[in-house]
Amino acid sequence: MMRVRTFLTATEVDPGEVGGSTAVVIDVLRATSSVVEALAAGARAVYPTVSSEEAIRLANSLGRDDTLLCGERKGLKIEGFDLGNSPAEFTTERVAGKRLVMSTTNGTRAFLAVEDADRVIAASLLNLSAAARAVSGAERLVLVCSGRENRFSLDDALCAGLLLRVLEKEGELEPDDASRAVLALTHAHEPTADLLLETGAGVALVAVGLRDDVLYCASRDRHALVPEMRDRVIRLSEGE
Amino acid sequence: MMRVRTFLTATEVDPGEVGGSTAVVIDVLRATSSVVEALAAGARAVYPTVSSEEAIRLANSLGRDDTLLCGERKGLKIEGFDLGNSPAEFTTERVAGKRLVMSTTNGTRAFLAVEDADRVIAASLLNLSAAARAVSGAERLVLVCSGRENRFSLDDALCAGLLLRVLEKEGELEPDDASRAVLALTHAHEPTADLLLETGAGVALVAVGLRDDVLYCASRDRHALVPEMRDRVIRLSEGE
Repeated sequence: MMRVRTFLTATEVDPGEVGGSTAVVIDVLRATSSVVEALAAGARAVYPTVSSEEAIRLANSLGRDDTLLCGERKGLKIEGFDLGNSPAEFTTERVAGKRLVMSTTNGTRAFLAVEDADRVIAASLLNLSAAARAVSGAERLVLVCSGRENRFSLDDALCAGLLLRVLEKEGELEPDDASRAVLALTHAHEPTADLLLETGAGVALVAVGLRDDVLYCASRDRHALVPEMRDRVIRLSEGE
Repeated sequence: MMRVRTFLTATEVDPGEVGGSTAVVIDVLRATSSVVEALAAGARAVYPTVSSEEAIRLANSLGRDDTLLCGERKGLKIEGFDLGNSPAEFTTERVAGKRLVMSTTNGTRAFLAVEDADRVIAASLLNLSAAARAVSGAERLVLVCSGRENRFSLDDALCAGLLLRVLEKEGELEPDDASRAVLALTHAHEPTADLLLETGAGVALVAVGLRDDVLYCASRDRHALVPEMRDRVIRLSEGE
């Protein structure tokens, strides 16, 4: 029996409640998609930070030679940073062997909200099946949909629901209200590129010229890898 | 075209964003169900307050002769109060002609979060059809699911979805992510008594001996009335 709690925004998370759980952070558009893509392209580690000032300080202390500053505000690359938050930017040429300090609006907040969990992994549509395999067998699972500026985001909720659809085939779930809701959503909607383009986050990205990012993030299981965060550093999960 | 925004918890509401809208507050288990029941039983007005201290102060200034103190903490009646928050308590014998000062955990917070809206009404399953009629034709609609202690509650989300199901038959909706989600939920779940008993709020009420409240709140369209809040006082909507 897997007890599942789903938080529909990062702000709903009570950090005191995640101890003893396996936590999955979901930010389809785009933070966790970018983390997956960065690690797939050979980045050594991703350091999530909240403020851009903190990102700059951390990058300086890690050493600017092999550290890239990545991040967005209102969708667009932060001025002076090396990369934004578009998954397609994270190519092998750019990121292989590098450390990435990443400052994003909602995704970072979600990672830090669950840092007291026993295990923290990242999921997106790009690594959905691998993420489901990684948490299979957990007794207490916490899904955190990053949401958008403190509000519900359909893309994250659908990704959470699809994850639970995989898990409920493997064993009985004990879902809370929000887990039941995200499961039910997957019976009404598929997170296709067309649907993601219609979500609030999708519309906002198209408005700033990042339509291709939305299409990219819709591709299912592009990578069979799992990002895992320990001590605020995200690396490839061990055993992969 | 009706633009619809749904907030899945009261804490998600940005009070600055509700101006110019018609707002619907939903707390199926149990605040808005109780408000509907109280007005149906002839209560003159309901005054939502956050703290029990504020409730006592307000009741004293209104005059204790024709004012009842109502409210709950963790589901149970506040000590020294006249009534709790069980809809079935609000009988004609007890409340007809009275003012009710009501302090509840989540519902009150939702009412106050949208007090800057052009119009604020209360919906529950007990007055679902009447509530839908009352907001039909609004150009900008805001639905606020009270939720439970800052978290998603399935009963409120289903009630919101059913309201939108009625409204989408009458004209085109322009739903945000959360509005699409609550609509989708209604295709997977019906808010029957059995389902309400399985929700987080339902389980908590059963645990404190209030199973009958859950059954009561599940009955659809028991009353064709609409509570409306003006200047923090909830009365029967005019024209009824």
